[in-house]
Amino acid sequence: MLHVKTPDEALDIIRSAFAPLDRPPEAVPLSAALGRVLARDVTAESWVPDFRRSTVDGYALRAADTFGCSDALPAQLLLAGEVRMGEGAGLSLEPGQCAAVPTGGEVPPGADAVQMLELCEDYGDGTVGILKSVAPGHNMIFRGDDVKPGDRVLPAGRRLEPQDIGALAALGVTDVPVLPRLRVGVISTGDELVPPEDAPAAGQIRDVNGPLVCTLLEQAGALPRFYGIVPDREDQLKQTVERALAECDAVILSGGSSVGEKDAACRVMSALGEVLFHGIAMKPGKPTLLGRTPAGKAMVGLPGHPVAALFVTHLFVRALLARLEGRELRRRQVTARLTEGVSANHGRAQYNGALLREGPQGLEALPIRGKSGLITALAGADGYFCIPRDCEGLPAGAQVLVNIFIAD
Amino acid sequence: MLHVKTPDEALDIIRSAFAPLDRPPEAVPLSAALGRVLARDVTAESWVPDFRRSTVDGYALRAADTFGCSDALPAQLLLAGEVRMGEGAGLSLEPGQCAAVPTGGEVPPGADAVQMLELCEDYGDGTVGILKSVAPGHNMIFRGDDVKPGDRVLPAGRRLEPQDIGALAALGVTDVPVLPRLRVGVISTGDELVPPEDAPAAGQIRDVNGPLVCTLLEQAGALPRFYGIVPDREDQLKQTVERALAECDAVILSGGSSVGEKDAACRVMSALGEVLFHGIAMKPGKPTLLGRTPAGKAMVGLPGHPVAALFVTHLFVRALLARLEGRELRRRQVTARLTEGVSANHGRAQYNGALLREGPQGLEALPIRGKSGLITALAGADGYFCIPRDCEGLPAGAQVLVNIFIAD
Repeated sequence: MLHVKTPDEALDIIRSAFAPLDRPPEAVPLSAALGRVLARDVTAESWVPDFRRSTVDGYALRAADTFGCSDALPAQLLLAGEVRMGEGAGLSLEPGQCAAVPTGGEVPPGADAVQMLELCEDYGDGTVGILKSVAPGHNMIFRGDDVKPGDRVLPAGRRLEPQDIGALAALGVTDVPVLPRLRVGVISTGDELVPPEDAPAAGQIRDVNGPLVCTLLEQAGALPRFYGIVPDREDQLKQTVERALAECDAVILSGGSSVGEKDAACRVMSALGEVLFHGIAMKPGKPTLLGRTPAGKAMVGLPGHPVAALFVTHLFVRALLARLEGRELRRRQVTARLTEGVSANHGRAQYNGALLREGPQGLEALPIRGKSGLITALAGADGYFCIPRDCEGLPAGAQVLVNIFIAD
Repeated sequence: MLHVKTPDEALDIIRSAFAPLDRPPEAVPLSAALGRVLARDVTAESWVPDFRRSTVDGYALRAADTFGCSDALPAQLLLAGEVRMGEGAGLSLEPGQCAAVPTGGEVPPGADAVQMLELCEDYGDGTVGILKSVAPGHNMIFRGDDVKPGDRVLPAGRRLEPQDIGALAALGVTDVPVLPRLRVGVISTGDELVPPEDAPAAGQIRDVNGPLVCTLLEQAGALPRFYGIVPDREDQLKQTVERALAECDAVILSGGSSVGEKDAACRVMSALGEVLFHGIAMKPGKPTLLGRTPAGKAMVGLPGHPVAALFVTHLFVRALLARLEGRELRRRQVTARLTEGVSANHGRAQYNGALLREGPQGLEALPIRGKSGLITALAGADGYFCIPRDCEGLPAGAQVLVNIFIAD
């Protein structure tokens, strides 16, 4: 007997029933690596920087030569030369000497600090006056300050963001080893559905979940493949799911929501594998199915209501994809204050869309009103929050954690 | 005389000096609309749904016929027929009648409510017992409950997210009117720079800002175009900037940071237009330049230090792109508690990278230590926070607002 699971139980089942897929990595150039998932740890193979660099425009020198100097009594150093950008220092300093060095230029051997230009005076006679003392190591970056060979810079499973691309560039990792994108089949079911480009006839509606789920998958870094709208016939549905399973890493049925359809999705999953749960104690989103084929592929049955499909995909399908890629899903939540009370009395976790705006006392969440299934009510929404199952509602002013609708 | 601006002043200048670009919109299919910016308001042209729908599997009926009924004394109604999914109701109800209706099916004319299957009993003799009364309007969605013709569903300037794509599908807007992507030229300058795929020789480092800035622009929805690494020669830089300005909507110079380079970027901008500010009172990030050509195109000079370039791009270049697209940049900030104190004594707003993690008392921000320019220190970072200019630092446990590194 399959019980309805709580949202936390559903996440636990996703984690325990599926393992990261074992797939050969592929290499992509830096310009195509944004949003991809690292296939292995990236470890530095060289020193960054590979030489000691000045962080200011100034004079490289021996710090000890400046101790005790002042505006009134400058330390007078011999100008031994000038370091040029992009070239080795080409000289080394003796006690009593200094060398002009630009920001980012090499600090010559013999020097152990840099004094900034504004605190020095070039006397024009081959000597420079230092008007303020510096401590050793001041105004410079040491070899390997950024990374040393062997340092792990990025872990396997990281979904790459711009600053990671910058780090890879610094290390010279220009063929980035990433996981292949997950291929996820999407099937819309329901006799009442017509493609969005068609005008619905009597009793018909446009298919919202197909484009919605495909876009959510794309945002999560997967490659969605849409198998079209399948009528409520079990044999036809089974055939389409089988084809999608053969071609994809996971399959998502976006269910119609009539009894017949719900049963059909469940029977198809049972025929092709094992149903792991049938129902999540949440509103909207209850009629959610999770299944697994003997080969370990995931089958998800989403509710037909678009808002329910949106919440369930955001909460559970993304977690499933992260699991299949062996990465942690990062929480993107902000704390905000409810502008109005929201009632709940369902004995299930209730999810509610929200707009976010800056108020006088910080971030505010405006709950979006509307019946389940009204996707346009969520157009423009920033995220959603949860009212716990044992809670009768939340008053205006209550703090809520808003899950924001963004790529993780 | 150009003064150094505070971060807020810099944002004000961006907003006042630039206006949304006037460009003809383009139409893209739903499958290519994620992350694009709506070129005009999207207004519903039809009713969604276009008919009254049941939200449960059950019996459509007249609510008044059920008043006072109970388990013990069911209301007995005549079964007038069955509504099928995807078809019009095909019947209309008289008093004392009911019709079987699936979730999402049409509620027939004459009915004003639906009772769910579980609270009904089919006697098998052409009549159905209703075990609990329902109020008019119960368990159904009315025509236009989602939208009515003329309702504005999405505003011009919205950067489209999955739930918006769902709403567009519901409305049948499958040729989505979006702004062309902003074309932004990126130029790296510095004699010390080699492309990331090359091994640096003495005094050289790899160009980090080129890939970093291009990726940040891509994440912000723009089309970056990289013009390569230009040595510190003003004539050559000017030539490259001119070419980029001719081909792009805006140009970003990612400066080397020696005095000569800084001057060169500033002189090139002055020669090609007006320098709007030279320096932002922030650390890192001070040597930032903003300019405008007579034709109104933006020129940005970023600091050479990658971490500074990252913060400045995230804070100001994204704001500039949003301005050019006529949209509001949404704040993506989370409140977190500092795990360690961070010192500051610079008289400028200080920005510091952070990792986020869940702690026993909520979200925690681990400040990332390291000198400016160490991009690998930010690999894996979740975002950054600001220590205000008049603040000597923040103690462990202080609440900080962390800007998170994500597409807006």
